[in-house]
Amino acid sequence: MVALGGGQGLSASLSALRRLTADLTAVVTVADDGGSSGRLREELGVLPPGDLRKALAALCGDDDWGRTWSEVIQHRFTSDGELHGHAVGNLLIVALWEKLGDHVAALEWVGRLLGAHGRVLPMSAVPLDIEATVRGHDPARPGEIGTVRGQAHVAVTPGTVQSIRLLPEDPPAVPEAVTAVRDADWVVLGPGSWFTSVLPHLMVPELAEALFATKARRLLTLNLAPQPGETEGFTPQRHLEVLAHHAPELAVDAILVDEGAVTGGAFGDADLPGLEKAAGRMGGELVLDRVAAADGTPRHDPELLAAAYDRIFRTHGRIGAWR
Amino acid sequence: MVALGGGQGLSASLSALRRLTADLTAVVTVADDGGSSGRLREELGVLPPGDLRKALAALCGDDDWGRTWSEVIQHRFTSDGELHGHAVGNLLIVALWEKLGDHVAALEWVGRLLGAHGRVLPMSAVPLDIEATVRGHDPARPGEIGTVRGQAHVAVTPGTVQSIRLLPEDPPAVPEAVTAVRDADWVVLGPGSWFTSVLPHLMVPELAEALFATKARRLLTLNLAPQPGETEGFTPQRHLEVLAHHAPELAVDAILVDEGAVTGGAFGDADLPGLEKAAGRMGGELVLDRVAAADGTPRHDPELLAAAYDRIFRTHGRIGAWR
Repeated sequence: MVALGGGQGLSASLSALRRLTADLTAVVTVADDGGSSGRLREELGVLPPGDLRKALAALCGDDDWGRTWSEVIQHRFTSDGELHGHAVGNLLIVALWEKLGDHVAALEWVGRLLGAHGRVLPMSAVPLDIEATVRGHDPARPGEIGTVRGQAHVAVTPGTVQSIRLLPEDPPAVPEAVTAVRDADWVVLGPGSWFTSVLPHLMVPELAEALFATKARRLLTLNLAPQPGETEGFTPQRHLEVLAHHAPELAVDAILVDEGAVTGGAFGDADLPGLEKAAGRMGGELVLDRVAAADGTPRHDPELLAAAYDRIFRTHGRIGAWR
Repeated sequence: MVALGGGQGLSASLSALRRLTADLTAVVTVADDGGSSGRLREELGVLPPGDLRKALAALCGDDDWGRTWSEVIQHRFTSDGELHGHAVGNLLIVALWEKLGDHVAALEWVGRLLGAHGRVLPMSAVPLDIEATVRGHDPARPGEIGTVRGQAHVAVTPGTVQSIRLLPEDPPAVPEAVTAVRDADWVVLGPGSWFTSVLPHLMVPELAEALFATKARRLLTLNLAPQPGETEGFTPQRHLEVLAHHAPELAVDAILVDEGAVTGGAFGDADLPGLEKAAGRMGGELVLDRVAAADGTPRHDPELLAAAYDRIFRTHGRIGAWR
């Protein structure tokens, strides 16, 4: 199984998938330019490690050892000084990169430290930037279409994101990530920040080709709510349309949507026949299930998400191949 | 076995002792105020972790796992920015302190990470400062006696250090360190920066009392050369006199001196009968052996030092207790 994404969304899918398979690979975006990751890529010229760290923490071992080291790598320094805001795991990952000169091997070492249930790979070995076309980025000129550069800025734009590009364009994929996608039984996209965590993988040509060509089934998981700054006001259909716009060749087998979110929830009372049609245009079946956390926050519950994934994997064939 | 010290000197004794015993505890000075450690204690109000990190690295496992993590914790960032000069292990140790709120438990976790052959304890749970009485600290006034504060400054004074004090005075010892000294078969002091790594332990009252009262035999290892800035121009005897001056109650069983260093080496042709008498005044036997590295640098060779320690341990009784 391969999960693609970044940030909290990828952590959610990994927390669910680790319950279903012992053969799990995360392919992680490397376009973050904010916070601790942004400072590290600027100061040391390295890949932004933050999304990789979060994915590793989501896969940490269930014992005292795994949980403790996971908490340590997630720990952030708080001070009035130069270390403020840096996550310890980011510094550890970067040190291993510098020491070993090999992104993949270094992440394997951190994975072994955590007793991780799976492997974490960067989608590209080159630090990337996201550039977005945004309508109304400047609130004073709401109709104007302009360009916003940098993931941190795109994520909080008050305008409406139309499309994204990666800089440099057509970056090389990490070969192990391409192989993992080609050899998978299932590839899982989303949930996550739609433009900055879910779409970027489709802008890496070799990875996109692998996603189009793989014999694996493809599962897309929709977010539980529009995301302020990135997908504010987006309907569920709009999410799918944006994906299809950026990667017209992408076909999916199933699209998992939280039932509550589209029936009076964060997406209001959504146009379900319209959503089903949009899913059909991508080749996939719309699957409504209950996967939201009980506390009402727009987070997926790992147990519920795992159960929903399991049902989809069983329904859509290759039963047993991922256990 | 317990080894007391800090810095390179302690690494040398630990590298030797780990070959001789499976029950090894390092008790480490916490008065560093320079470099990465100095910045961390200033920014985060923590113990300076650098000497603890070096001791842990000296005890790392012999396998690929232990060696790799040891290299990672010893790795220093190089940049034009805020992380420049920070050792990764310092950041990891501090994170564990912040996370666990327990110095000893945190160092145990790092020890387990490295597969360390022994345990590393701080001598005090309070960050300390060294204040030295120095003759001629200001080269313009060579005869004047003044006060120099901070380990980093003391270590490079162009004057002659007369004595040191700790600030705060009479700091509390870490209880586990006191117990380790009381329960040891052998306690090993030196080699190391005489005023800033070897003497400070004797200024921690509970630790000094344990050193005086323990039934353990005590072995003192002399440096291979006077140290510019700290013991410039000191004879071997002067080293012993300084120790006796700071801790008149300290008796030792053996004093290990490199034969080459006192016969035409860095100490010139030393007054051996005088040195033997000075050793006798501390209750100890002078042991001449060959323990210097072959490359001529003033570093102890771990294998030779281990062989010399082993001979002393066998000669001075309790054979077998440390194996």
